[in-house]
Amino acid sequence: MIVVMQEGATEEQIDAVIDAMVEAGIGVHRTTGASQTILAGVGPTAAVDLSKFEVLPGVLNVHRIGSPYKLAGRGFRPQGTVVEFPNGVKVGGQQVAILAGPCSIENREQIFAIARCVQAAGGQFLRGGAYKPRSSPYAFQGLGLPGLEMMRDAAQEYGLLTVTEVMEIAQIEPMLPYVDCFQVGARNMQNFNLLRALGELRKPVLLKRGIAATIEELLLAAEYILSGGNYDVILCERGIRTYETATRNTMDLSAIPMIHKLSHLPIVADPSHGTGRRELVAPMARAAVAAGADGIMVEIHPNAGKSASDAAQTLYLDQFEKLVCELRFVAKAVSRTL
Amino acid sequence: MIVVMQEGATEEQIDAVIDAMVEAGIGVHRTTGASQTILAGVGPTAAVDLSKFEVLPGVLNVHRIGSPYKLAGRGFRPQGTVVEFPNGVKVGGQQVAILAGPCSIENREQIFAIARCVQAAGGQFLRGGAYKPRSSPYAFQGLGLPGLEMMRDAAQEYGLLTVTEVMEIAQIEPMLPYVDCFQVGARNMQNFNLLRALGELRKPVLLKRGIAATIEELLLAAEYILSGGNYDVILCERGIRTYETATRNTMDLSAIPMIHKLSHLPIVADPSHGTGRRELVAPMARAAVAAGADGIMVEIHPNAGKSASDAAQTLYLDQFEKLVCELRFVAKAVSRTL
Amino acid sequence: MIVVMQEGATEEQIDAVIDAMVEAGIGVHRTTGASQTILAGVGPTAAVDLSKFEVLPGVLNVHRIGSPYKLAGRGFRPQGTVVEFPNGVKVGGQQVAILAGPCSIENREQIFAIARCVQAAGGQFLRGGAYKPRSSPYAFQGLGLPGLEMMRDAAQEYGLLTVTEVMEIAQIEPMLPYVDCFQVGARNMQNFNLLRALGELRKPVLLKRGIAATIEELLLAAEYILSGGNYDVILCERGIRTYETATRNTMDLSAIPMIHKLSHLPIVADPSHGTGRRELVAPMARAAVAAGADGIMVEIHPNAGKSASDAAQTLYLDQFEKLVCELRFVAKAVSRTL
Amino acid sequence: MIVVMQEGATEEQIDAVIDAMVEAGIGVHRTTGASQTILAGVGPTAAVDLSKFEVLPGVLNVHRIGSPYKLAGRGFRPQGTVVEFPNGVKVGGQQVAILAGPCSIENREQIFAIARCVQAAGGQFLRGGAYKPRSSPYAFQGLGLPGLEMMRDAAQEYGLLTVTEVMEIAQIEPMLPYVDCFQVGARNMQNFNLLRALGELRKPVLLKRGIAATIEELLLAAEYILSGGNYDVILCERGIRTYETATRNTMDLSAIPMIHKLSHLPIVADPSHGTGRRELVAPMARAAVAAGADGIMVEIHPNAGKSASDAAQTLYLDQFEKLVCELRFVAKAVSRTL
Repeated sequence: MIVVMQEGATEEQIDAVIDAMVEAGIGVHRTTGASQTILAGVGPTAAVDLSKFEVLPGVLNVHRIGSPYKLAGRGFRPQGTVVEFPNGVKVGGQQVAILAGPCSIENREQIFAIARCVQAAGGQFLRGGAYKPRSSPYAFQGLGLPGLEMMRDAAQEYGLLTVTEVMEIAQIEPMLPYVDCFQVGARNMQNFNLLRALGELRKPVLLKRGIAATIEELLLAAEYILSGGNYDVILCERGIRTYETATRNTMDLSAIPMIHKLSHLPIVADPSHGTGRRELVAPMARAAVAAGADGIMVEIHPNAGKSASDAAQTLYLDQFEKLVCELRFVAKAVSRTL
Repeated sequence: MIVVMQEGATEEQIDAVIDAMVEAGIGVHRTTGASQTILAGVGPTAAVDLSKFEVLPGVLNVHRIGSPYKLAGRGFRPQGTVVEFPNGVKVGGQQVAILAGPCSIENREQIFAIARCVQAAGGQFLRGGAYKPRSSPYAFQGLGLPGLEMMRDAAQEYGLLTVTEVMEIAQIEPMLPYVDCFQVGARNMQNFNLLRALGELRKPVLLKRGIAATIEELLLAAEYILSGGNYDVILCERGIRTYETATRNTMDLSAIPMIHKLSHLPIVADPSHGTGRRELVAPMARAAVAAGADGIMVEIHPNAGKSASDAAQTLYLDQFEKLVCELRFVAKAVSRTL
Repeated sequence: MIVVMQEGATEEQIDAVIDAMVEAGIGVHRTTGASQTILAGVGPTAAVDLSKFEVLPGVLNVHRIGSPYKLAGRGFRPQGTVVEFPNGVKVGGQQVAILAGPCSIENREQIFAIARCVQAAGGQFLRGGAYKPRSSPYAFQGLGLPGLEMMRDAAQEYGLLTVTEVMEIAQIEPMLPYVDCFQVGARNMQNFNLLRALGELRKPVLLKRGIAATIEELLLAAEYILSGGNYDVILCERGIRTYETATRNTMDLSAIPMIHKLSHLPIVADPSHGTGRRELVAPMARAAVAAGADGIMVEIHPNAGKSASDAAQTLYLDQFEKLVCELRFVAKAVSRTL
Repeated sequence: MIVVMQEGATEEQIDAVIDAMVEAGIGVHRTTGASQTILAGVGPTAAVDLSKFEVLPGVLNVHRIGSPYKLAGRGFRPQGTVVEFPNGVKVGGQQVAILAGPCSIENREQIFAIARCVQAAGGQFLRGGAYKPRSSPYAFQGLGLPGLEMMRDAAQEYGLLTVTEVMEIAQIEPMLPYVDCFQVGARNMQNFNLLRALGELRKPVLLKRGIAATIEELLLAAEYILSGGNYDVILCERGIRTYETATRNTMDLSAIPMIHKLSHLPIVADPSHGTGRRELVAPMARAAVAAGADGIMVEIHPNAGKSASDAAQTLYLDQFEKLVCELRFVAKAVSRTL
């Protein structure tokens, strides 16, 4: 950290800041220029609340030098993390993963039809919601465990892995037999107790970026899981909230190369939630692969228009098949496979 | 709801939309103009996912007429809600409430000193965090139950009510004896299971607006609590995330009169989190009262600069006392008391 | 337009709204349901200020049915616009255009070296700033006309077209001999007098999206140019302002397919301004092509690190050459050429 | 400025950065810690593009220490600026100024009726638009000079000062006889040539914050005017663009105390544009005064509902009179007059 003193700060003020830094376990190097004094802090500052120094008398401003996360930082694993699943499927390697399924699991026929389609298209993951966080208490809230059983059966039948959202700690235990990868939804990205609990597991976690989360906050949320010893975290860009209303969210594709620079964790893209509009899903999926995404997660449904939730952003099965074909070409253009 | 068909939509397309509306339990009135057909839907549409209709062939766009919330709407209680506490203190009436305390409860001396000050200044609520949601896993996470005991003792001693944040369902039960008003933090505003659980209680809930929540989403979150039968909900504006970086958040004071128009629920303002900077707390607290806030919640600490968390936005006790004096004048100017 | 009356609106209120609509030249169809009356307005409402009706007594809300732009809408030219330049180069067709050059024209050597490189890589346009809008009055403001002369010479030498920013009406006339395509910068997207003046020309205009402009506002700005009879407008997505600070702006790639849906105008992407960081330019350029961009505009400089402006986002010439190669593959993957 | 080198940066990299800093006229102090080297730059860096250093090899990040503006900074005039008009009216002193008038000047009767009302209420400024920047080319564009003549006559009759928007340099000269204070609209806040031209005048300028401008950018825009020698600049907060759609803009009242801290310039608030809704104008005007605004600018019209533009946010004359009464009480509560 660096503390910049105001011009005209007194020696007493400077000493008080140095004392406060030392008290916080930080070593101090002082540079005094013609008009300003600068205090460079050395040591473990990740846990230090910098605002504490900002308000000391005579301080102009305070800058953090390093990143506030450690385990999630690129430096921790410069070669990058590849999350490997029991059946050998990998996320974060050469191959771009395909994760697809309905917003909500509705019934046995639906989820089996979808699983068949995902497998046929060459996808690896069946996604589907059984517990749904809905803005309105009057909207469909999901089938719960019976839905998860259906999804597990369908995944088994077609050799797929399952991904589904967990909304609270109490759900983890009963969900374990049905889930290959726990998804943390955007609204829970900063549900820190849930993150800690998932950190205790030894099962991969797909962590979605909060609707107004910065990249730094997303990596700090991942840090909660990593710091529990669970290193199999897959990040997910799914659109952020901006002033633009033509799309449901604004998909921040630049987060993909930026996170690859800042972190070793793989990152997948969810153009369904990212755009909220069916006709934008395919172009944004292609763009995400071109930008370096390690996987694409999309909502699909045999009767998309009648989907119990998220109908407007759900692809029909034939649209999904066509999309996977297109993605194969784009993946090849950026030297990856699908 | 209103469905606007595209120019040139066929009769078949129009019929298909009408069928879908009827299937969803919505009565339909059709208007056919020179170039366009409009279908007005009548009936209970709060639970209907309008996007489902938006993607039907021939549809130009779909508008919701009513609000998606019911119990939280002004129409449900046109006279407004006054939340009354066991000791007779009211929020939402003529008097502007004062809620003050430390970001984190740190020790017995600290919380007693603060409680004494809150009472002396004429405040009604002692606020303080025992469970802290922190962006970084390495930051101070709160004292937990022992902290709540200290706060309850201090509140008792000085005749104050307690407000503190609950982070998950499992905490509710053990917290009950210590808490007069449960606070739902901004990060949990859409933790719907938690909201439902609080709806089962018969204790007031202070619901903070999420950092990127619209006013509509805040009222829908309140609806979760109200729909459980707990009508004692106090809303809280605490700053939203915008592109501006000079302040920690952008305090949206217009939400106060807007919510008074849309809803019957009282709303308090938190200028500490709203601005993130000590020197802005007083002017924004004054502004909030002038805009019609039903209460002001501020972070205070005898040694604000050394506060275990949120140091930069915490007032010293004498600053708080001065602020309350100023607020008394502003309250009077807008025909309220403090 | 559709006016939804409040439940319980009186006949007098309804009549007053109908009168106001008729007065504004709008035909009215009335639908009266069990609880609510809806007034559908028919006729030319693009020029009507809808807020005028929103505040009439008894009105719940007002919705615009059509888009407020006409000439810029897809319906005006369903087949799409291809902007053709005198030398036969086209933007908006099968080929993805390459527009490259320095942020600021600095001297003859610089611009000639860059032009040589653009031509060698297969680009069609030499871009370069002579008049620079800078946030600070103390920053470099551009060479003016002498700079434009250098750029014209360099473009001539290497068979390229020139694109450069015009900042005010008085500059148009003297710039004419040097410019093949006038660029309107993000800060001037709503400089309506300038847009009108450019509408009088018969030279293509590249219109950049304002830093906080919605897609609708961008198309309305284009409408100003089109309504003067100049139909050769190329839009440009260059990043919008959001809360994220890791990147200079947030590039909204979904605007590309969305604009292709809403409008017939071609749209190019500027990943240099869109990201503000050199290492993100290539992945976002690839993503833009995959999303359907009709061209890519990038800042390049032989000594990028010492560029007189925008150094951090400027590519070195060899980085640019490599990028163009990559883009060729991506273009092919989405069935286009470069 | 401070340059933080990466851990492991080589001596050659460090030397190259030092050379680049020296070349830019900046003195360098070097601090080498256990793991990291920090270079503190001393000297005039306001005009330096810091991003230039950010991309040099081995650099982790670069921080600006001082503010990029000088004349607009509080340090330039610690006692604050009071803008005094020829008739003795002051903005920035003890008294809160009232600026009111129609969005557009429509005819003689309208502007005279309004001027009479402003004077009666105790206001000092008649505001009114003659040149209107409108998002749509089909909307009413203002009366031009004839409108200004009417406004001047009305202001003369009732002893008021005139404020009106100037949209381009060519308008300044003809507007001079009619205008006491030039207004720069939000869309032109970064029309730097216009700002420079206004800097050459010796007439006050009211500079509105751009819809997506940071406080720093607003002060840099003011710097353009100040650097021409025109020190009579009044800033104006008028709402910023956020994700919230319930209000037209989000009024950032915290900008008022923040700007008073950072700058010596007075700042007024425009709750009409700030909220876009008539019923929010009064509470937000009161809040602005409580937050320390030096003036309140509102749109008023004898027949607000039929106003040629901005009808939804315009007050009726009796609403305005009532508001001024309320503001008098709030001003008194914060020790000011009206």
